[in-house]
Amino acid sequence: MSDRFSSLTEYSPETRVFGRESEYRPPKSWRTWLIGRPLPTADAPHQTIGKAIGLAVFASDALSSTAYATQEILVILAAAGSAAFGYAFPISIAIVALMAIVTLSYEQTVHAYPDGGGAYIVSRDNLGIMPAQVAAAALLTDYILTVSVSVSSGVAQLVSAFPLLAEYRTWIAVLMVFFIMVVNLRGVRESGITFAIPTYFFIVMMFSTVLIGLYRHFSGSLGLVVDPPPLEIGHALQPITLFLILHAFSSGTAALTGIEAISNGITAFREPRSRNAGITLIAMACILGSLFLSITFLSGKIAAIPSEAETVISQLARTVFGGRNVLYLMVIAATTVILILAANTAFADFPRLSALVAKDGFLPRQLTFRGSRLVYSRGIVSLAVIASLLIVIFQASVTGLIPLYAIGVFLSFTLSQFGMAHRWWKSGRLRSGETRREAGSTVHHDPYWLVKMLINGFGAFCTAVVMMVFAVTKFRDGAWIVLFIIPALVFAFASVHRHYQTLASKLTLENFGSPRAIQRHRVILLISTVHRGALHALNYARSISEDVTALHVAIEPADAEKVRAKWELWGDGTRLVILESPYRLLLEPLLQYIEEIDARRQPDEIITVVVPHFISPQPLSGLLHANTAEWLRKALLFRPGIVIVEVPYQVGNGNGRLRLPKPPTRHD
Amino acid sequence: MSDRFSSLTEYSPETRVFGRESEYRPPKSWRTWLIGRPLPTADAPHQTIGKAIGLAVFASDALSSTAYATQEILVILAAAGSAAFGYAFPISIAIVALMAIVTLSYEQTVHAYPDGGGAYIVSRDNLGIMPAQVAAAALLTDYILTVSVSVSSGVAQLVSAFPLLAEYRTWIAVLMVFFIMVVNLRGVRESGITFAIPTYFFIVMMFSTVLIGLYRHFSGSLGLVVDPPPLEIGHALQPITLFLILHAFSSGTAALTGIEAISNGITAFREPRSRNAGITLIAMACILGSLFLSITFLSGKIAAIPSEAETVISQLARTVFGGRNVLYLMVIAATTVILILAANTAFADFPRLSALVAKDGFLPRQLTFRGSRLVYSRGIVSLAVIASLLIVIFQASVTGLIPLYAIGVFLSFTLSQFGMAHRWWKSGRLRSGETRREAGSTVHHDPYWLVKMLINGFGAFCTAVVMMVFAVTKFRDGAWIVLFIIPALVFAFASVHRHYQTLASKLTLENFGSPRAIQRHRVILLISTVHRGALHALNYARSISEDVTALHVAIEPADAEKVRAKWELWGDGTRLVILESPYRLLLEPLLQYIEEIDARRQPDEIITVVVPHFISPQPLSGLLHANTAEWLRKALLFRPGIVIVEVPYQVGNGNGRLRLPKPPTRHD
Repeated sequence: MSDRFSSLTEYSPETRVFGRESEYRPPKSWRTWLIGRPLPTADAPHQTIGKAIGLAVFASDALSSTAYATQEILVILAAAGSAAFGYAFPISIAIVALMAIVTLSYEQTVHAYPDGGGAYIVSRDNLGIMPAQVAAAALLTDYILTVSVSVSSGVAQLVSAFPLLAEYRTWIAVLMVFFIMVVNLRGVRESGITFAIPTYFFIVMMFSTVLIGLYRHFSGSLGLVVDPPPLEIGHALQPITLFLILHAFSSGTAALTGIEAISNGITAFREPRSRNAGITLIAMACILGSLFLSITFLSGKIAAIPSEAETVISQLARTVFGGRNVLYLMVIAATTVILILAANTAFADFPRLSALVAKDGFLPRQLTFRGSRLVYSRGIVSLAVIASLLIVIFQASVTGLIPLYAIGVFLSFTLSQFGMAHRWWKSGRLRSGETRREAGSTVHHDPYWLVKMLINGFGAFCTAVVMMVFAVTKFRDGAWIVLFIIPALVFAFASVHRHYQTLASKLTLENFGSPRAIQRHRVILLISTVHRGALHALNYARSISEDVTALHVAIEPADAEKVRAKWELWGDGTRLVILESPYRLLLEPLLQYIEEIDARRQPDEIITVVVPHFISPQPLSGLLHANTAEWLRKALLFRPGIVIVEVPYQVGNGNGRLRLPKPPTRHD
Repeated sequence: MSDRFSSLTEYSPETRVFGRESEYRPPKSWRTWLIGRPLPTADAPHQTIGKAIGLAVFASDALSSTAYATQEILVILAAAGSAAFGYAFPISIAIVALMAIVTLSYEQTVHAYPDGGGAYIVSRDNLGIMPAQVAAAALLTDYILTVSVSVSSGVAQLVSAFPLLAEYRTWIAVLMVFFIMVVNLRGVRESGITFAIPTYFFIVMMFSTVLIGLYRHFSGSLGLVVDPPPLEIGHALQPITLFLILHAFSSGTAALTGIEAISNGITAFREPRSRNAGITLIAMACILGSLFLSITFLSGKIAAIPSEAETVISQLARTVFGGRNVLYLMVIAATTVILILAANTAFADFPRLSALVAKDGFLPRQLTFRGSRLVYSRGIVSLAVIASLLIVIFQASVTGLIPLYAIGVFLSFTLSQFGMAHRWWKSGRLRSGETRREAGSTVHHDPYWLVKMLINGFGAFCTAVVMMVFAVTKFRDGAWIVLFIIPALVFAFASVHRHYQTLASKLTLENFGSPRAIQRHRVILLISTVHRGALHALNYARSISEDVTALHVAIEPADAEKVRAKWELWGDGTRLVILESPYRLLLEPLLQYIEEIDARRQPDEIITVVVPHFISPQPLSGLLHANTAEWLRKALLFRPGIVIVEVPYQVGNGNGRLRLPKPPTRHD
């Protein structure tokens, strides 16, 4: 084999490259109406945001979990009767403590990864490919569940205020997902203001609720929930066991979901971005923690009952505000909207992560293509479809979905923090002032590496323990599904990667000499009858090679005779082989003939089989003819050096117009 | 345009034609086991039969109708109560008279068409294309119904003898159709003996039954049916009206079905074949008439009751033989077998007729291909599928199917005899000794042309009247279905014919100068990335033309830059156009570019778009790549002068083995 060097000598200085912009402009269609006019690539936005807006953009996912976390703790405790509800507050204190640890841990990530340090990137850079794929699988699963859970909880708030909607809850939820999908296909500019208004509205409303609630509680005027929904308990009352407490704790950890969002989006912040992002993270954790704690505290005091019919938030709000009044409705509206924003966050994260994973070659490359509005349309649509499916299967029940949720989050927390810990260890190995460039970031020597490693390590340890508690206590409730799906996804990622890698290694031009020029080009022209289409194909065949053999597979001897006579008249010197097919088969004798020729083929020789193909404008006319070329192409797919060419010959009143099949495809 | 003459001057004496036989031998497969080893075309049988065997081969359809004709008359009369059964015998006399007329009429056809004179051929030659298509539609419909009715009646005989089978009647019937289909796919050699034994066994058993029955009747020892099935009468008793009598007559005319079989199969007879066939026809009519008359007579005498639970034949046989003994079972067996043979006749006729119609261009040409066993497999399978469907829909009820039956037969009788009458008229116009060659036969002057014309004309008149009576009296019972299907079929035939004719006129070489040789061949090579597959395709492109332009549609500017850099290294002088696609679309800018070039294309210029295509052996890998060539081919299908070529590049561990897709196709 000649190596790359020899090819360089063949390098031709005359290779000319012309560049031009296509003048094609997409026409208006129903898609324009639904998702807006297509945007050129140059329109991609590059804007940054400050801390206040940053909080609004990234906190909705985390804050929205206060809408259901308390209730899900109570649902589990309800198995031991309402007497067990007293454990909710201590459990929430433990969860907030965990939250503090995770926040501290992520604070370090934000500073170490100024270009964005999501669990996937941190795992990939510090732990390797396999852990990164596990993190990706966990995150993708969780983004899907974020959509299902948030939208279901949003609908639950609506149903609490308007009980008549209860029977349509599944369809309202699916409609909401569809709505969020369309908004995202239009391309959400994270312009901030659209996020800021509802997020701050939610923060204000919730703080008003809990502050007034606390004031009324301590002044003794709060009282209990009026007319609470009935407590639904399965069979006999369970005793209060450690398992039950841990089970409730697991459900409550849903409050931590979304806390990692800022570490993904550091690049969106104004400079100094790490510092701004870090402050925002701590602010978010404080708001989240205090809201969660006070909601849980007050729910206990007013004796709120967990129920699918009315959410705990709804019970709390109407108790605090003394009925279903305007303030109550404002709380419900704010909660519903923030839950929808949370789902919207997943719609930003899922396509971005899947594009990242696809770019690394672990998911189909199509996921890296940006659609007409510069968003990863395929990822957005996939997310909407899968999340809707989950909503339909679980009938939009938050309690049904919760056991699937959070396990992925904690898996990614663990990997991410363990990755950080490993990074600090590497940092400690460096000498002072020394740096090491890595794929996603640069490792500096850090004098405090040991403390930082211990913080991240402790965070990783805690989240790993919680994850295991979660897996054990919620295994039968549905966690097993996720424990099955994540390895399956990792396996799929690996298969996709292997395919792309094999392909790349077979296609690479490294150590590849120029392929040998084709010295001989044999053309076999398939003739069923001698007609204009056949002569057109003959003309084509002769334009590509001097060496043309016409081939007629003789099924009926009478037809063969006709072909022979006509060929003598019209064949214009091209030799004709009549291959008698005693068993009246077309494809098999043909393939055997091609095989025979192929067996004698030299490496610098190529065989083209030309098949005349007449194109009729009548729609069903294809049924009246055999599609020989298609069969041949399939049969010879794995044969190197053989090309099948269909030469179309348009008959009938074809107007030569362009027929554009939908959907348009993109590069492979 | 240059005309045919100029092309003759271009005729090249060096055109060489080579003939050879393919060495391909079909391997053994499950098909071999089911329908036998494939037969070479040379094995087609050419044997003739005598009168006795001829009767056995062609009479089964006609004779088998005695198994249900009487019963179907009684079913209609039953509406007026058992008192009306007395009309059955007079009605059967009228039917036998009609049978005599039709036989006489067909006798003339047999002599005039020694090469076979089915209704389709006689109509085509003497009445024109449209009546011939009507005859074809009528006959094809009726062959289908022959299968459904005969098999259903066969199952009814079995059920009479073994009532336990009643609930499985539909499935037994479908199984029988499948069995007959397989036998026919194996290829039934009409060798005679296989037909002779059951047919003569049936004739002997039936004559024994009626003769003993008549003897016992006239000696007064016959008596009535013991324990007859209950008489099923719908609502109130109807009065005996002319309509009712005609209705019953219509049902009874099912006895005439199959009488035309001999006229189709004259070529199978030994010489002098017309004479032999004619004698056979008369013998068959005599047997049929006498059996039908005596069965109807005796059924009245024993007071047989028409019923789905027990056939009239079964009631007659057990009354004559004094119980369900061996003789009774022999009659039932003989009747069942002859009914299956009758269905088998349709399996010979339907594919033969549809091949004939397809050869004339009114049905898809695929129907003219003979399968591995030299039979028209597609016609056989189609017939089995449609007949089974009818059996399932009508739950294998003969009474349900009968209103659809016979109307097609009478339509074809009418057309055939009217065609013969017209032929005699033409014969009368010739002078003595003069002959006129026509498509299917030769018309001679016949001194007795007037008598013969009157005989055929009278036959045509009678069958036309019967057909109208049938259509009116049975319209609501189901005849409307056939009255809808026959025109629909004729319309479909016409559409198919129009398609083939348009095609032929566009493809014909009459008045066609040699197409202008291609002077310029532009090649556009589509490049997504520069890899071995792309260079392989470049090599191919350069082997077919000097004028190659590589084209990269730039979706991501970064990719375009990579392509440019690599192309300068590997492009070997071939010019590259980078087409920037600001909306990240592939197909649309590409099509616009091709259109631009196409607009400047000269008539003697052709454009080939070469698309590199890597072939991976992994089965689902196609999902990971876009199938650009397929989309291009569809989009440019109606554009003359543009050819799309996929140049395959095999990657991975493809072993170069031949993958033969199933099913194998045949010539278009």
